[in-house]
Amino acid sequence: MTVHIVTIGDELLIGQIIDTNSAKMAQFLLEIGAKVTGKTTVGDEHDDIIGALKIASASADIVLVTGGLGPTKDDVTKKAIADFYGTGFVFHQETLERLHRILDRLGKPITDALRDQCWMPQNAVILTNLMGTAPGMWFEEGGKVLVSMPGVPFEMEYLMEHEVVPRLQGRFNPLPTVHRTLFTSGEGESTIAEYLKNFEETLPPQAKLAYLPSIGRVRLRLTVSDVDEIFVKKTVEEKFREMERLLPPEIVAGYDNDTLESVIGQTLKAKNLTLSTAESCSGGYLAHLITTVPGSSAYFLGSVVSYANEVKMKQLSVSEETLRQFGAVSGQTVQEMVAGANRLLGTDIAVATSGIAGPDGGTPEKPVGTVWIAVGNQHRTVTKKLKLGKDRLRNIQYTGFYALDLLRLFLRDLDQNA
Amino acid sequence: MTVHIVTIGDELLIGQIIDTNSAKMAQFLLEIGAKVTGKTTVGDEHDDIIGALKIASASADIVLVTGGLGPTKDDVTKKAIADFYGTGFVFHQETLERLHRILDRLGKPITDALRDQCWMPQNAVILTNLMGTAPGMWFEEGGKVLVSMPGVPFEMEYLMEHEVVPRLQGRFNPLPTVHRTLFTSGEGESTIAEYLKNFEETLPPQAKLAYLPSIGRVRLRLTVSDVDEIFVKKTVEEKFREMERLLPPEIVAGYDNDTLESVIGQTLKAKNLTLSTAESCSGGYLAHLITTVPGSSAYFLGSVVSYANEVKMKQLSVSEETLRQFGAVSGQTVQEMVAGANRLLGTDIAVATSGIAGPDGGTPEKPVGTVWIAVGNQHRTVTKKLKLGKDRLRNIQYTGFYALDLLRLFLRDLDQNA
Repeated sequence: MTVHIVTIGDELLIGQIIDTNSAKMAQFLLEIGAKVTGKTTVGDEHDDIIGALKIASASADIVLVTGGLGPTKDDVTKKAIADFYGTGFVFHQETLERLHRILDRLGKPITDALRDQCWMPQNAVILTNLMGTAPGMWFEEGGKVLVSMPGVPFEMEYLMEHEVVPRLQGRFNPLPTVHRTLFTSGEGESTIAEYLKNFEETLPPQAKLAYLPSIGRVRLRLTVSDVDEIFVKKTVEEKFREMERLLPPEIVAGYDNDTLESVIGQTLKAKNLTLSTAESCSGGYLAHLITTVPGSSAYFLGSVVSYANEVKMKQLSVSEETLRQFGAVSGQTVQEMVAGANRLLGTDIAVATSGIAGPDGGTPEKPVGTVWIAVGNQHRTVTKKLKLGKDRLRNIQYTGFYALDLLRLFLRDLDQNA
Repeated sequence: MTVHIVTIGDELLIGQIIDTNSAKMAQFLLEIGAKVTGKTTVGDEHDDIIGALKIASASADIVLVTGGLGPTKDDVTKKAIADFYGTGFVFHQETLERLHRILDRLGKPITDALRDQCWMPQNAVILTNLMGTAPGMWFEEGGKVLVSMPGVPFEMEYLMEHEVVPRLQGRFNPLPTVHRTLFTSGEGESTIAEYLKNFEETLPPQAKLAYLPSIGRVRLRLTVSDVDEIFVKKTVEEKFREMERLLPPEIVAGYDNDTLESVIGQTLKAKNLTLSTAESCSGGYLAHLITTVPGSSAYFLGSVVSYANEVKMKQLSVSEETLRQFGAVSGQTVQEMVAGANRLLGTDIAVATSGIAGPDGGTPEKPVGTVWIAVGNQHRTVTKKLKLGKDRLRNIQYTGFYALDLLRLFLRDLDQNA
């Protein structure tokens, strides 16, 4: 079951809107084992839309179209779809009645533009959109399906969940498909690929491994699809375990929807430990990452962002002597920041950062991108020096990632020493 | 000058990555008067890529390709492009040397996968990518241009800015085009559109107004393009001033590349004032926004992230009585947090946040999304209650935005009272 997505709208082409719909649709489709094989975006132009529909329907079983409906679009999409099928229009009374009910509730009169929305291509099956005024449309011809949905994300999501996915399942009865995901932390995509080179080569044709890299992390998703459901379940489990064994255990950071932040949170909760941060160059970003996790208030007590040296000394008790002798960007300073944060905020573990985020402030000995990070409790503190790049925002993001990863490894060592 | 964008990658089709690159590329292209007329996404499949390149190059003057270049992609894109042109490969020694320099600095050995990246199609002009390992490639044939770039957003952006845009300008010499941008803060797109309805209708055909909305902000970009350069400059200035006069002055927050954070920084520097934050529900995000601005250490001294009530009391001197009587999420608490931060960190102005970010922790009186923010100096403190939604991350982001906007208006009032 292959799918081609067509997204329509001038606003998508000129970069005014980022297309989040296709990713969301693909996720819905993945769950039912359907595969998106291509995607085309065109503006609100009749001929361009027809061209895209031709390419799409020639290359896939299912064409999902979003956008180009709605009262300000002059119904160009609906006209193009009708012309694509060589059909005329009929008035859809039910849609008009639904529009009346919506507008009555809002105390608004029905406009001509809205009334025009009730004209539908003759061969359309109408999909009721409880989230907005423009309904979805389902077409079938020559064994192929075409679905047109509004471009408003929550309207599209409603139609996918309640109308399109159930109908596609009934219509195509797709292959049983199972995914397993793990993510690694601290190694790049190419290093991971080296570990898994032979593994990938010996995967059966029903299995596929996807690499999804982000800063310092690689998400590895193994997918198995086959008519034989028992084979699928068995193969995905076996191969997933095999893959995990091939990776150094210290870089396997979590599974499925885990993130580095959520894994750290789970560990802290399980060990009943509290956390704080003392941040210079990361400027609060580290605390932000930690507090994106729901329920983080159970273990995260707070942070001191000490951008000024006075704050490092007064709040975090970094000694003037340390700052003078080694400088604010040094292993000694981040070590004292860790001790200071644990004492000040009454936490078990603290993470500290200090560095030169740039673009200015570098020296020959400590160029822009020089960052020290530290993690410690009352017994032990580990420090690490990073040599990052010249871009300020990226330096902040990388500092946040490396500090979290150092914390993850610190918590892991606690386990092993326990 | 028309452009077709081709984005390559299984991860785009399966919905694991949202394609932000095309919107960014379209924005770069808009600057030089080039128009994106279509966009195609395909997976990492040789034949699909060639199919997309054929469609793209038949329909536009320029084809911009991103993605499919990383070390785990088996160079499928490069092979497809070479086959599209019917050409072979040459080894690019300079790229190998650059890879060696990068890896030496990281203390890592060069892998086979990385070495393979140095083989390039014979007809490629190599575009040096200072942000990563995979270079960009520029092709010209039959009056058409094709450019291949890595899919990593900041690598693509670097290449667009430093290589692709200047080369396209040199190659196609588009119409003289001038943009002027301002951004508003605190009003939505539809409200702004009401203010500018008549203005837009009376714009000459050579002028175009683009709305670029983000959280709480709308960037308004006026573009004028014409063969007559004097007309362009005169028209853009006149119309821009006219547009600005039609907007309430308190919502016009900045111009051109300004951001809310940078405008606030400029004001603080000009007035020689220092700033701190005291954050509960924003969890460091506000300090992070402030410290993304280069040079922010000149006015931002630090932050106390007081996730725990003990930290609010001990560090920020919020009284136990206030917490008991009004709760941590209250106007009284954020007011005391402001005073506490100014005193503790020795700053002139402080911003405070406290709220229920969710998904849990709400009560009937204070549902999830209830947030209090405050800004104050030693003379005056203003507070504001926000009623946000149910999504944790969005609540954090909106709190950050509204707190910055309250700070902007506070600084504006200082001016008017001075």
